[in-house]
Amino acid sequence: MKNSFGTSVAVTLFGESHGPAVGAVIDGLAPGIDIDMEYIRARLESRKPYGSISTPRREKDDFQIVSGVFEGKTTGTPLCVIVPNTAQKSSDYEADRPLARPGHADYTAYVKYHGYEDYRGGGHFSGRITVALVAAGAICQSALSKKGISIGTHISRLAGIDDSRFSLNEGDLKKEIDCLGNRRFAVIDEQKAEVMQEAIKEAASDGDSVGGILETAVAGLPAGIGEPWFDSLEGVLSHALFSIPGIKGVQFGGGFDLVDARGSEYNDALRMKGSRVVSLTNNNGGINGGISNGMPLMFSCAVKPTPSIHIAQETVDFVKGEDVDIETGGRHDPAIIHRARVVVDSVTALVLADQLALRYGTDWLMP
Amino acid sequence: MKNSFGTSVAVTLFGESHGPAVGAVIDGLAPGIDIDMEYIRARLESRKPYGSISTPRREKDDFQIVSGVFEGKTTGTPLCVIVPNTAQKSSDYEADRPLARPGHADYTAYVKYHGYEDYRGGGHFSGRITVALVAAGAICQSALSKKGISIGTHISRLAGIDDSRFSLNEGDLKKEIDCLGNRRFAVIDEQKAEVMQEAIKEAASDGDSVGGILETAVAGLPAGIGEPWFDSLEGVLSHALFSIPGIKGVQFGGGFDLVDARGSEYNDALRMKGSRVVSLTNNNGGINGGISNGMPLMFSCAVKPTPSIHIAQETVDFVKGEDVDIETGGRHDPAIIHRARVVVDSVTALVLADQLALRYGTDWLMP
Amino acid sequence: MKNSFGTSVAVTLFGESHGPAVGAVIDGLAPGIDIDMEYIRARLESRKPYGSISTPRREKDDFQIVSGVFEGKTTGTPLCVIVPNTAQKSSDYEADRPLARPGHADYTAYVKYHGYEDYRGGGHFSGRITVALVAAGAICQSALSKKGISIGTHISRLAGIDDSRFSLNEGDLKKEIDCLGNRRFAVIDEQKAEVMQEAIKEAASDGDSVGGILETAVAGLPAGIGEPWFDSLEGVLSHALFSIPGIKGVQFGGGFDLVDARGSEYNDALRMKGSRVVSLTNNNGGINGGISNGMPLMFSCAVKPTPSIHIAQETVDFVKGEDVDIETGGRHDPAIIHRARVVVDSVTALVLADQLALRYGTDWLMP
Amino acid sequence: MKNSFGTSVAVTLFGESHGPAVGAVIDGLAPGIDIDMEYIRARLESRKPYGSISTPRREKDDFQIVSGVFEGKTTGTPLCVIVPNTAQKSSDYEADRPLARPGHADYTAYVKYHGYEDYRGGGHFSGRITVALVAAGAICQSALSKKGISIGTHISRLAGIDDSRFSLNEGDLKKEIDCLGNRRFAVIDEQKAEVMQEAIKEAASDGDSVGGILETAVAGLPAGIGEPWFDSLEGVLSHALFSIPGIKGVQFGGGFDLVDARGSEYNDALRMKGSRVVSLTNNNGGINGGISNGMPLMFSCAVKPTPSIHIAQETVDFVKGEDVDIETGGRHDPAIIHRARVVVDSVTALVLADQLALRYGTDWLMP
Repeated sequence: MKNSFGTSVAVTLFGESHGPAVGAVIDGLAPGIDIDMEYIRARLESRKPYGSISTPRREKDDFQIVSGVFEGKTTGTPLCVIVPNTAQKSSDYEADRPLARPGHADYTAYVKYHGYEDYRGGGHFSGRITVALVAAGAICQSALSKKGISIGTHISRLAGIDDSRFSLNEGDLKKEIDCLGNRRFAVIDEQKAEVMQEAIKEAASDGDSVGGILETAVAGLPAGIGEPWFDSLEGVLSHALFSIPGIKGVQFGGGFDLVDARGSEYNDALRMKGSRVVSLTNNNGGINGGISNGMPLMFSCAVKPTPSIHIAQETVDFVKGEDVDIETGGRHDPAIIHRARVVVDSVTALVLADQLALRYGTDWLMP
Repeated sequence: MKNSFGTSVAVTLFGESHGPAVGAVIDGLAPGIDIDMEYIRARLESRKPYGSISTPRREKDDFQIVSGVFEGKTTGTPLCVIVPNTAQKSSDYEADRPLARPGHADYTAYVKYHGYEDYRGGGHFSGRITVALVAAGAICQSALSKKGISIGTHISRLAGIDDSRFSLNEGDLKKEIDCLGNRRFAVIDEQKAEVMQEAIKEAASDGDSVGGILETAVAGLPAGIGEPWFDSLEGVLSHALFSIPGIKGVQFGGGFDLVDARGSEYNDALRMKGSRVVSLTNNNGGINGGISNGMPLMFSCAVKPTPSIHIAQETVDFVKGEDVDIETGGRHDPAIIHRARVVVDSVTALVLADQLALRYGTDWLMP
Repeated sequence: MKNSFGTSVAVTLFGESHGPAVGAVIDGLAPGIDIDMEYIRARLESRKPYGSISTPRREKDDFQIVSGVFEGKTTGTPLCVIVPNTAQKSSDYEADRPLARPGHADYTAYVKYHGYEDYRGGGHFSGRITVALVAAGAICQSALSKKGISIGTHISRLAGIDDSRFSLNEGDLKKEIDCLGNRRFAVIDEQKAEVMQEAIKEAASDGDSVGGILETAVAGLPAGIGEPWFDSLEGVLSHALFSIPGIKGVQFGGGFDLVDARGSEYNDALRMKGSRVVSLTNNNGGINGGISNGMPLMFSCAVKPTPSIHIAQETVDFVKGEDVDIETGGRHDPAIIHRARVVVDSVTALVLADQLALRYGTDWLMP
Repeated sequence: MKNSFGTSVAVTLFGESHGPAVGAVIDGLAPGIDIDMEYIRARLESRKPYGSISTPRREKDDFQIVSGVFEGKTTGTPLCVIVPNTAQKSSDYEADRPLARPGHADYTAYVKYHGYEDYRGGGHFSGRITVALVAAGAICQSALSKKGISIGTHISRLAGIDDSRFSLNEGDLKKEIDCLGNRRFAVIDEQKAEVMQEAIKEAASDGDSVGGILETAVAGLPAGIGEPWFDSLEGVLSHALFSIPGIKGVQFGGGFDLVDARGSEYNDALRMKGSRVVSLTNNNGGINGGISNGMPLMFSCAVKPTPSIHIAQETVDFVKGEDVDIETGGRHDPAIIHRARVVVDSVTALVLADQLALRYGTDWLMP
C-alpha cells in the first residue's frame, strides 16, 4: 500500500488541501487506550501556523473520530479521524494551474497523475494532510508516554542559528522533552527562540523562506526493537520520516556530523549502570545493527527551506511546454520547521507503536 | 516480512557470517533478463577486501544460482543465489562471546535473540551477508542499464578528504558513472584515491578505522516514480539503504548541506530542454513530493568508521553484567566504505527495479 | 495491515454499526476514472434490505467521497468514502451486552478486545461495514467493465432451491451477467426468485433464517493474472471473500462438487478458437496453477444461515461465566444472501483491479 | 511479495522441479526452537511417493539448513532450507514443450512468463516445491505442538469413499490427530485406507487419476486469533492453502455441506465448561467473525483429481496455435491427496505461527 505505513499498527492518509476533508485511519491500535481530546487538540495547536512567522491561512482543525473509539477509549478496530477543510481559497491557485512552482510537486504530480490531480494548494501533497497525521500520532504518543516512552523534537538549527543539543544524561533529557511539549516554538534554549523567529521574519520580509534541522530524542525505548536487515529501526523510521514534506535528510546519532571521526572516537564505550547496559556516549543514536540498545534514540531531520516564496522564479508551463516566470501567490509559510516538529513526533510515535506491537504483541500498549 | 524488501520485485536475505552459506531470494524479476555471470563476478570482486586497506579474510565468493534461471535468462520465478562460506575462522571469536564489541550489534542481538544468536563474526549482522545482496543487485543493475538507467556511487569524502562531486551535466554524469563501474577504489578524481588509501593505512597502523560519505547518482530514471506519502522515493530508498551495515545517515540533494540556504537559493529553477522539463540546479536530488522529476537522482550516505578496531575499549560482559575491557581480535577492515559502495549500488538497483515494476507492470524490465 | 487488502490497489475499512459512520479508503486507483454516482447508488440500493425478507432497519446510505476525486474523476490519490450511520437503535442491544449471540462474534470480540469493543449491533463485525465496501467496489467494477471485464453473482442455491447455472458459452454468460446487474433478487432463472423468497419468508415466520450459495462469474479477464505460490488468484480472491460476514466456503470451478470425478473428466480439454486458446469445459474455473487462463473466472461462496434468529438459544454470559438462554431482539435479516451478492461482486472487483495494476502497471485502468 | 506468505513469521519459496534445488526461507521464527531433524525427515517421508499408488520418481529429499540455526536451535534470523533435486529426467518433457497439458499450468505459465519459464516437469509450478514447504512447516508444527497446539489432516473422502469424521470431543480429537501423524496413508478409520488405495490403483490401471477431500483439525488454538476484516483466520488460511497444487475449494466448519440448514440448526449453542466457553456443535469451525473462539479449528480442502493422466486428450500447441492431441508421458501420480495432507498440515502450521506471533509477540513460540 502506498499512502499507508506500518504492519501491526498502520496508518493510512487521505485528503487534499482543498477537498472536503483530510483524514487518517490507524489500524491495529491496542484496545483500551484513553482518547485524550485535550492532548490531541494541543498537538494540533502546535502544528498550526501562528503569528507573523506563518501563513495567514487559519484552519479551525476541528477533528472528528468516526470509528474505533467507544466510551472514550480505543476499541482495537480501525480508528478514523477526519478533519474538515474550511478555509480554502482555491481561486488563489486557479491561474497558475499548469505552472510548476519550483521546489514543489506540481510537475511530478502532473506526470504521475496525467493531469487528473487536484492541483489546488498542492492537493494531496499539501502539508495540510499532516493535520491528520498529527491527530493520529497524538493518540500513539500519549499511549507510549504512559508506558514510559517519551518523544521530543526541537529545532536544533534554523537559518544558521544553533539551539542547544539534547543532554546525554537521561534524567535531564526527559525534562527537556517534557519542556518541549509545552513550547509553541520548540527550542531547548529559549533565548534562541527569539533569534530564530527574527530570522524567519527577515526572510519573510524578503519574500523568501528558511529551513533547518529538527533533532528528535526518544527516552525509555526498550532494547531489542528492530530488525537486522531492511526493517532496521533506522530503516523504518527514515521511511516514514521522509514522507514529511520538506525533509531531505535523516541521520541517526553521529550521522553526517561524525563521518570524519575514527572508530576509537565514534564507538560508544559501554558500562554497567546497576543491571542496565549503558553507553558513555551515544554516537550510534541508540541503535546497533538496526536494533535499539536501550539508550535514548537520537536522530535529526534536514528540512529544506519552504519552496513557496514571493520572488519571481524561472519555471515552465508543463502543459504548453514553454518557459515562463512565476511569482507564487497564495498564503504561504516563510518557514514550516516549527510546525513540522510535531509531525516528526507523531510519525515517530506511530512507527514505535508499530514496532513495539510487532515485538511484544498487539495488546502491549493497553493500559 | 523482516529481512525482505520490496513489493513487486522483492529481495529476502539469509545467512550468517560463519554458517554454511549466505544468500538472497529475488522474487518478481521480469522474465527474459540475461544473467551476465561475468558482470556479477565483477561486482562481487568490487565488494571484496583487497590490499592492505582491508581485512585479510579472503572468501572466494563462488555463487550458485539455484532457481529462477533457465537457459541463461530469468524465468520470472524466485531467483535464489547462494554463496557458500569457506574462510571462517570461528575460533577468533569464541573467547569474546559474551563481550559487547562497542559499536557492534553483539548486545542488541543478545537482547533480541536471548542468547540463541550465532555470535560468530557478527552472525546475521555481518557485512558478509551483503555478498548475496550484491549478487542480487547486480542482476537488477545490469537489466536497468539496458533500459537506460545507470547507477553509480563514489566515495565523496573519507577521513576528511573530499572527492570531486558528480557533474550537473547529464552527459558528463553518465561518463562518470561508467568510469566508476570499472574502478576498484571508486572516486571520480583518481588522484584522491591514493590520498584516501593512505589515510586508511594510517588509521590501520594505529589499530583504528575511518568512515566517510558515499554519494550516488542515478541517470535515466523516468519522471513519475514514487508516491506522495510514505512510499516516497526518498522513503523507500532510505529504508533499504539503512540496512547496509555502518550507514547512519541518508540525504537527498542538498540534504543537511543546504539547511542554511534560503528558498530562493534551494528551489531548482525549471526550463524546457526540447520537450523535456529540466532543472538548472538539482538541490532536490531529482525528487519532488516523493516522486522522481526526470533529473538525475542524487543522494548520499554517511558511513560511520568501522567499529572493529585493535585498540582497548571499555565494554561489558552482558551475561555476567560486569564491566570489562576488550581488545578485539579477528580479521577486520580499517575501512569498509570502498567495499560498501557496490552494496549501495545494488540496493539502489533493487529498489528502483521494484518501483518501476509497480509503476509500469511486471514485464517492464524485459528485454 | 489488518483491515486492509491489496497491494497496488488496496482498500481499508473502518466503522462500527452504531458509531458515527462507516467508510473505506481505496488507495492506488488509476487517475481519470469516472465516478458514476448513479451506479454507486444503484449498487448500494442492491445491498439494502427490502420488503418483508429483510430487516426493518432502513439506512439512507447517503455516502460522501471526501478525497481522491476532482472534477468528477479519480485523481489517483487515496479515495475515502464515508457513509454516516443514521438509523441506529442501540437500546435494542444494551441488555444483551455480555451474552454471546450464538453464531456471532460477540465472544471472540470480547476475547480479542478485552471488553473495549463497541458491542452495539455487532460493532465493527457488522454487515453494516459492507456498505462502504460496496461503494468502493462499485467504482472498481464500473472501471473494469469499461475495460471489458464483467462481474456477476447470483444466488445459485437457497434453502435447497437451485437456480440455473451460468452458461458455458461466453456470449450467453455476458448477457446473464448484465441481467443480474439489474435484478434486485439476483437469480438467473427469474421463476426461482419467487420460490426462494417464499422460503425466506417461511423461515422468517418461524423466527429462523436461511443460507445458500452465491456463484460468481467474471468474463473478459485476460490470461496471465496471478502467481504460482501464495498469491495465486484463488488465494487472493478467497482471502478477501472470506471477510464477507457469513461466508464459510469458497470454491473455484468444480471445487467440492467434482471431488469424485476422475482426471479424464475434470481436466478441461483445450482447443484453438481463432487465435485464442479456449477450454471446452471450465472445471478449473478459469485458473491453472494460480494464474488466469483466459476463460471466465468461476467461483462459489457458501453463505451460512444468518445467525440472528428469534428463537431461544443456549448461550453464556461471558463476563459472569454463566450459562444463560438468549432470544435475540433487535432488527434482523432472515437471509442476507440476496444482499451479500453485491458485496461479493465488489470484493471481486477490488481484488481484480489490484491484480491487474500489479501486472500491467498503475495506469492500466485509466480510460 | 508473490511467492511469500506471512507477516511476522513469513515463508518464501523458490525452486523448479528440474533445477538444481528447491527451498524455502522462513523469517521471523522465534529463537531457541529445537530443530528436530528426525521429525522433519519423518514429515518429508510422509510427503514422498510410495508403493504402486504413486509416481516412480523417487527423490532422496536430503535437505540442508544453511542459515538461521545454531547449535541445534533456531537463532531468530531467517532460516533457509534447501533440498537438492537429484532424480530429474528432463528428457521426458522435452518433446511436449509447447503443448499445454490439460489441467496443468503450462499455458498460463507461457502467457505470464512469455516462454522464459522452466517448463520441465512443471518448473516452479511443480508439486516438487512443496518439499521445502513441508520442511519449513515441520519446524513450526513441532514448535506449536510444544505449546499445546496440534494439527492433523486426514483424507475424508477419495473417489467417493468417506473416512470417519473427526470427533467433536476434544480428548478424542487429540488422539485422532496423534494417530494421523504416524500413518502413511492418513485416514481415521484404517479400514478405509485399503479401499481408498484400491480405488487409486484402479484409476491408475485405467491411466486415470482421482481426487478427494482433506479435512484438517487444529486442537489447542487459543481464542482471539484473527481479524474481523480481510485478515480473518479463514482469509489468511485459505489464502495460503489455495497455493497447494490441486486445491480448488476450502471450507470452514459446515461450509458447503450445511448451506441448506437453518440458523437454528447451524448456530453453535454455547455453554460454560468450567471457566471455558465451549460450543456443543462446531458448525462454525472454531471461528466467529474471523477470530478463533477456542474450539478446534475445522476446515476441509477439495483436491481435484491429478491432471496428469495417461489417456489421450485434446489440447493445443500454444506456440504454433494449433489443435493437437496429447498423451502425457513422464512419471506421474494417479493421486496426490495422500501426499498433500502433510503439505496442508505444514501450511496450517506456518499460518498459525504467524498469527500467534502477531498476536502475542515474536517470542511467543520460544520454549
